[in-house]
Amino acid sequence: MNRNVYIENKPLEEALALFVDHLAACGWFEVQEEEVDIYESLGRRTSQPVFAHRSHPHYMASAMDGIAVQAASTFSANEVHPVNLSPDQVLMVDTGDYVPPQFDAVVMIEDVNIVHGQYQIIRAAVPWQHIRSVGEDMVEQDMIVPSRTLIGPYELASFKTASVERISVLKKPVVAIIPTGTELVERGYADMPPGQIIESNSRMLAALCQEWGATPLRHEIVIDDKDLIRQAVAEVEAMADLIVICSGSSAGREDYTASIVQDLGTLIVHGIATRPGKPAILGSINRKPVIGVPGYPVSAQLIFNLFARPIIFQKTGSDFPSPQTIECSLARKLPSHAGVDEFINVNVARISEQFLAYPLNRGAGVTSILVKADGVLHIPRGDEGLDAGSPCRITLNRSRQVIENTLVCLGSHDLAIDVLIDILQRDFGIRMISTNVGSMGGIVSLSRGETHCAGIHLLDYESGEYNISYLNKYLNHEQILLVNLAQREQGLVVKKGNPLQISGIRDLIRPEIRYINRQKGAGTRLLLDYLLLQQDIDRNQINGYSREEYSHLAVAAAIKNDAGDAGLAIHASAAIMDLDFIPVDRERYDLCILPNLLRPQQLDSLLTAIRSAEFKRRMQSFGGYHLEQSGQIVWEGTK
Amino acid sequence: MNRNVYIENKPLEEALALFVDHLAACGWFEVQEEEVDIYESLGRRTSQPVFAHRSHPHYMASAMDGIAVQAASTFSANEVHPVNLSPDQVLMVDTGDYVPPQFDAVVMIEDVNIVHGQYQIIRAAVPWQHIRSVGEDMVEQDMIVPSRTLIGPYELASFKTASVERISVLKKPVVAIIPTGTELVERGYADMPPGQIIESNSRMLAALCQEWGATPLRHEIVIDDKDLIRQAVAEVEAMADLIVICSGSSAGREDYTASIVQDLGTLIVHGIATRPGKPAILGSINRKPVIGVPGYPVSAQLIFNLFARPIIFQKTGSDFPSPQTIECSLARKLPSHAGVDEFINVNVARISEQFLAYPLNRGAGVTSILVKADGVLHIPRGDEGLDAGSPCRITLNRSRQVIENTLVCLGSHDLAIDVLIDILQRDFGIRMISTNVGSMGGIVSLSRGETHCAGIHLLDYESGEYNISYLNKYLNHEQILLVNLAQREQGLVVKKGNPLQISGIRDLIRPEIRYINRQKGAGTRLLLDYLLLQQDIDRNQINGYSREEYSHLAVAAAIKNDAGDAGLAIHASAAIMDLDFIPVDRERYDLCILPNLLRPQQLDSLLTAIRSAEFKRRMQSFGGYHLEQSGQIVWEGTK
Repeated sequence: MNRNVYIENKPLEEALALFVDHLAACGWFEVQEEEVDIYESLGRRTSQPVFAHRSHPHYMASAMDGIAVQAASTFSANEVHPVNLSPDQVLMVDTGDYVPPQFDAVVMIEDVNIVHGQYQIIRAAVPWQHIRSVGEDMVEQDMIVPSRTLIGPYELASFKTASVERISVLKKPVVAIIPTGTELVERGYADMPPGQIIESNSRMLAALCQEWGATPLRHEIVIDDKDLIRQAVAEVEAMADLIVICSGSSAGREDYTASIVQDLGTLIVHGIATRPGKPAILGSINRKPVIGVPGYPVSAQLIFNLFARPIIFQKTGSDFPSPQTIECSLARKLPSHAGVDEFINVNVARISEQFLAYPLNRGAGVTSILVKADGVLHIPRGDEGLDAGSPCRITLNRSRQVIENTLVCLGSHDLAIDVLIDILQRDFGIRMISTNVGSMGGIVSLSRGETHCAGIHLLDYESGEYNISYLNKYLNHEQILLVNLAQREQGLVVKKGNPLQISGIRDLIRPEIRYINRQKGAGTRLLLDYLLLQQDIDRNQINGYSREEYSHLAVAAAIKNDAGDAGLAIHASAAIMDLDFIPVDRERYDLCILPNLLRPQQLDSLLTAIRSAEFKRRMQSFGGYHLEQSGQIVWEGTK
Repeated sequence: MNRNVYIENKPLEEALALFVDHLAACGWFEVQEEEVDIYESLGRRTSQPVFAHRSHPHYMASAMDGIAVQAASTFSANEVHPVNLSPDQVLMVDTGDYVPPQFDAVVMIEDVNIVHGQYQIIRAAVPWQHIRSVGEDMVEQDMIVPSRTLIGPYELASFKTASVERISVLKKPVVAIIPTGTELVERGYADMPPGQIIESNSRMLAALCQEWGATPLRHEIVIDDKDLIRQAVAEVEAMADLIVICSGSSAGREDYTASIVQDLGTLIVHGIATRPGKPAILGSINRKPVIGVPGYPVSAQLIFNLFARPIIFQKTGSDFPSPQTIECSLARKLPSHAGVDEFINVNVARISEQFLAYPLNRGAGVTSILVKADGVLHIPRGDEGLDAGSPCRITLNRSRQVIENTLVCLGSHDLAIDVLIDILQRDFGIRMISTNVGSMGGIVSLSRGETHCAGIHLLDYESGEYNISYLNKYLNHEQILLVNLAQREQGLVVKKGNPLQISGIRDLIRPEIRYINRQKGAGTRLLLDYLLLQQDIDRNQINGYSREEYSHLAVAAAIKNDAGDAGLAIHASAAIMDLDFIPVDRERYDLCILPNLLRPQQLDSLLTAIRSAEFKRRMQSFGGYHLEQSGQIVWEGTK
């Protein structure tokens, strides 16, 4: 094997220090500035102090609607003996009008009576009253703001007022991003063959650059060819302040980033002791930083956050925003490798008085995790993980407001949950997070008080009833509410036209049929087991019984993509994917709610959403749902 | 007088409720959506849930670099009896490569030995290991995000990955802004006559709209002509969701907004019990809100923040960010009118363990106050103000980080302070705020522990010495450090060419000479008094002795703009304004520092900045400064 599979395992802080010190030695952090029109300066930082070009006001101005007078001419005025001024002794002025030098006070219009063409005043004016002096706001040459000031609406207004039209600001660093990979395509298309991947990492990193005040410059996709990648680097180098090469950062057959950096500049670090993100590269070409990020999106953003963000902030003179953190209790045990700094995406929610952190899937290829994540848990490399219930500090990437108003729904997944999530967020401002842990997983989470509610469909083999016996057996809460969401049809999802002529559960023992099962604890798997038991079929006879997917749609997608031939799933999943469906059973899918864990308004909103006409209408449109009982409380438990 | 000077005094919450209820009844808050390209969706909110168009991965993909195998073919492998697979039993795969249906596991390349063309494996592969199933990340038709989701880099990447190219987002409301006023000009120019004002409010409000996620649409300036303003409103109405008319909102001779709103639609409120901001207008035209904001910038932004911001946030479905607040002690007594909700801009800084709030100038025409303000103190209309030392809660508009790292410098102003502010912010990340309260004001602030340092130049009439006797007399701190910043030339600033032939202090008694004095407590005023005393001149003989300005530059600006003929000020102010200067005295300008109130690093940074070559160079360039002693500790007091 002609591969160099060994890369370093440089500790995180050491890698960052080496990188920053190297860039400092290159003079890379030295300020670069550019002059811009003030209207383009919003959100930028001044590189020089800004001085007023003109006083404001630049003349003696009336601060009121009224009449300009000579104060001395009013000194004898009182209510008994008013002073009467003739029109040539006064000047009618509105707010902002010029007060010529012969006047030294303004009397408010409310305090003036006009009697027979004379201006009657009953109170002496104090010299300079209601007159704005030259430069009251800003004097010509006053420093309006010092260097490094973030420019917002008020700074803009001050510049304009002081006749400043152009200013010097810190230049935005240009970040060149080069996506590499022969397997990459710019966008998806019908019948995209297996092995092709839509390039999205460069788009994500470009958007992060924008958030951080840098200008992204995306190169088009370059195939895995060392010369072509080297050529792309040469193309962007002159324009860029920072070069990012996406993927190719490991040490595989077609990973060229390290050797290109070595050829063209300095390779500082190859391989960092983080998880994810290990196969990353830090280097420089022509005194400019180069970062090689791994191909997996979760790894790519982590490396970019850890290494690009701090140097961009430093170069742009921005305050590194202090991270919002929150103290949580860890919902699940979390093993970690000692020797690596691990960064785990988590959901965070408040259940009663406690904030719980729910670790998300650690797959580095799962973009959707980044969308779901509320924050990150950093396990330092000295630690070997955390037990369930451990206190932990989460660095949030969402506002605490959102976290505070989050409902947790861990259990079996159904399209009903997505509809509820959508309605709750749109109409009630409540965020609901849901992870598919199966019905039994939901029962466990409910019993531990780790979820506000759970979707469940658990058949009691003995009674033929759904859910209630499980709640009775496993839950010990003061109050339990079981609300029906829908009755749904379960059946075998098979390919369009049913080419293998599958007619029922018994067919699953045919060896040529590749079955796709659901994960342990899923209600649908329990349903299969029940059906096998009824028909006295041995599960070991089923080809694929051990092959697990985590949702109805995932089962249907696998069949559609010929990764299997049949799977037990809901009707709607077949309908959505345009597959055939052989009905097997109808089951009750309920939402079990623990009312004591919700605020009364949240409970109210949840029930209102479930009982809305829109919920029923959207469910109906999927097909295979029966909504006669939907919204009804089918059981109420109190202890 | 043909004016209607009476407008309402509607309580704030009542005005807002009337406005919002009216708009709700008009259906104005109903969602409007538009479809955009995903690359244009950053920072927007979804109006519909977004579903995946394609599974990711859309094929069975290798999760590792390695070889694809049939797991069953490896079951007997162990270290003693490795399994040898022939090339036709395996497929070499890189991460992300397609794993065809004949394989059901991937063995990592690190665990494979190639021996004589055979692939040697020493551990059994578990079925489906290192294989990413179809839709592991997202399954076709999965809901990626629900309605009302803020789109960031990770959402963008997920859309791209799932072949979503366009999405529906909430439409940005269009805010038409019409600046009105015959006195307004689009930009300043040389010899701009008195009475003309540079229009900047519309620019400020437009920038606020951008911050709040709305699209500003600025009309050009319209003169105070009812028909023309009405025509401008008609022009923008069809394009706008919200119409803002700047100034003309009061009830003066040329205030037309109220009657235009009444003619074209509904006038809801005219006059709101806030300070500033009272003469404001809320109404609607064609079921769209109209806001008439006062002409003064501080009033304009307050009314816009109070009424435009909440309706824009509500219409765009954004969470109203919970304001960052901080508990402070009020540095100065603050009277307030009962009956109005008062909003006072303040600086905030930490002195030792306490946060202090420093009320800023309450002039509504002072744009620079908005730049200086760190936050706002709201005094509800039931209250009659607050005593010095009162606890108060400030709503911050700057990060707590900046507040925490702020040095306060209350005292006499000199250009040296601006230079220090600039160097400290740029090179040390320390913000220094400075308010010119004069040297005696500085002494008072120091004695109360309300400032970290103060610029002072106080002549002791008896000893002829500067500053030290005052510190001895008034301060009682454990440690006091007096550092010289510069010696500076004080003198009479007069018009270019000295047309009145002023040669010294004695000339100031000539009645045709309009003197401009400094405020009480200013060191320069004390210097004048000392000089008058020495020369036995009666201050009442000086025309303008009671006319006060608050800085050297303000004195010079007044003279330059013919608002006066002479004033005592530093040489640099005359040099900057290109005026003549008659030297009178040289004085020592020192910075008095209370080391115990600073963190050691702050003290160190401050002294380093003062002693830098750049500080001396910049001071030298102003003219009239002598820097031999600059940076030296001229006195150290301990008690």
